[in-house]
Amino acid sequence: MASASKPQIGVETETLRRTGKLRPARQLRSQRSLERIIEALDELLETKTFEEITVSEVCKQAGVAVGTFYDRVGNKDALLEHLRARVYAGIVAQIDQAFARERFVDLELRELLGINAREMVEMHRARRGAIRAIIVEARRSAAFAAHARELNAALMQRVTAVWLSKRADFRPGNAQLLVRSAFLMAAGFLRETVIWGDLWPGETNPDRVGADLEHMLTTFLLPAEDAGLSD
Amino acid sequence: MASASKPQIGVETETLRRTGKLRPARQLRSQRSLERIIEALDELLETKTFEEITVSEVCKQAGVAVGTFYDRVGNKDALLEHLRARVYAGIVAQIDQAFARERFVDLELRELLGINAREMVEMHRARRGAIRAIIVEARRSAAFAAHARELNAALMQRVTAVWLSKRADFRPGNAQLLVRSAFLMAAGFLRETVIWGDLWPGETNPDRVGADLEHMLTTFLLPAEDAGLSD
Repeated sequence: MASASKPQIGVETETLRRTGKLRPARQLRSQRSLERIIEALDELLETKTFEEITVSEVCKQAGVAVGTFYDRVGNKDALLEHLRARVYAGIVAQIDQAFARERFVDLELRELLGINAREMVEMHRARRGAIRAIIVEARRSAAFAAHARELNAALMQRVTAVWLSKRADFRPGNAQLLVRSAFLMAAGFLRETVIWGDLWPGETNPDRVGADLEHMLTTFLLPAEDAGLSD
Repeated sequence: MASASKPQIGVETETLRRTGKLRPARQLRSQRSLERIIEALDELLETKTFEEITVSEVCKQAGVAVGTFYDRVGNKDALLEHLRARVYAGIVAQIDQAFARERFVDLELRELLGINAREMVEMHRARRGAIRAIIVEARRSAAFAAHARELNAALMQRVTAVWLSKRADFRPGNAQLLVRSAFLMAAGFLRETVIWGDLWPGETNPDRVGADLEHMLTTFLLPAEDAGLSD
């Protein structure tokens, strides 16, 4: 095939081939700049709000020229959308692993809830700054809200599916409604403690959050006689 | 006294008295315009986000001229600050009543938690739009965050004080840490269901939220053998 097509190569095709050869390297550099810029925003969000961060700070942190930023990203809002897409993809991948049903086939509901509780705390802690910025934007912009709704539905579906796989251990009641409320309690508690803990008085100790979340999920989903924990 | 001061009234004092007579009426009209403008924002927030609402919409809803708005309020952000101050004052007054210890002296912890749960749902429902706008702003602006921190501390103090007055009914553990976590679980659940319910799949039935909140608080704070509810 290569020899059959070769005689037809003219000047235009040759140019395309040459730019084709060059493009991957340029695209790769460009892609790396974008990655570094997104990474820089993610890092800055650990200590500042999105409002407080300037484009020039992001560029300095990323080690890219401001011109590169405007070329590759456009503006600050577009950068937050890049970060959102990256963070959401990371969360979905991690949830798929953490809530894979195969992990829990041999466990009882209360053992499973203990593992889930601690892993959920860790997932929030690891992305605290980015999640703060994305939640705020999801509550201001309709486009972000639509993405948030989609992610929320996917997360609730995956987490509650694992819990429902142990519904034989549940207290009496509508199992679908029980897991929905349990999930929203967990999500709300994690947000107020791990994500927005600085807006509440007192210290937020992550081990404590994990243990309390486990206790809450266990006592909410299991019958009183089975929920008794060791504390 | 009135007759003793009368002879001293000169032209300037007379002018002051006259403007003094006029001022109350003008001030009252002005105060009423401001109240109507704040009220209008509050109403519009039931169906729209703060970002989506324009000054001219607020004025139309309030029945005031746009000029009056700029005279009395200044700008949209200043209006949100007025609404925040009003909503916070209302919340504190309502919490002071709802969590007055005298209400609960003859009740057991589980009865008290049932009443608290339902009243907390209602307090959130009644101010849903305003709370949405204020939460978003508290997470963007340092000034709003400082106010939110102050309110959060006051609310947590009042609510947990009532729960701690029944600490004899608690499960074993550090009572201060137990009520802090219970309060944050309740706050988080109420926010995700009543305030931001539209970002999650499924219907949010307020009666269900109240019953689930009661169950969660009861099973989280009481020993397993005492927590058993009727469902």
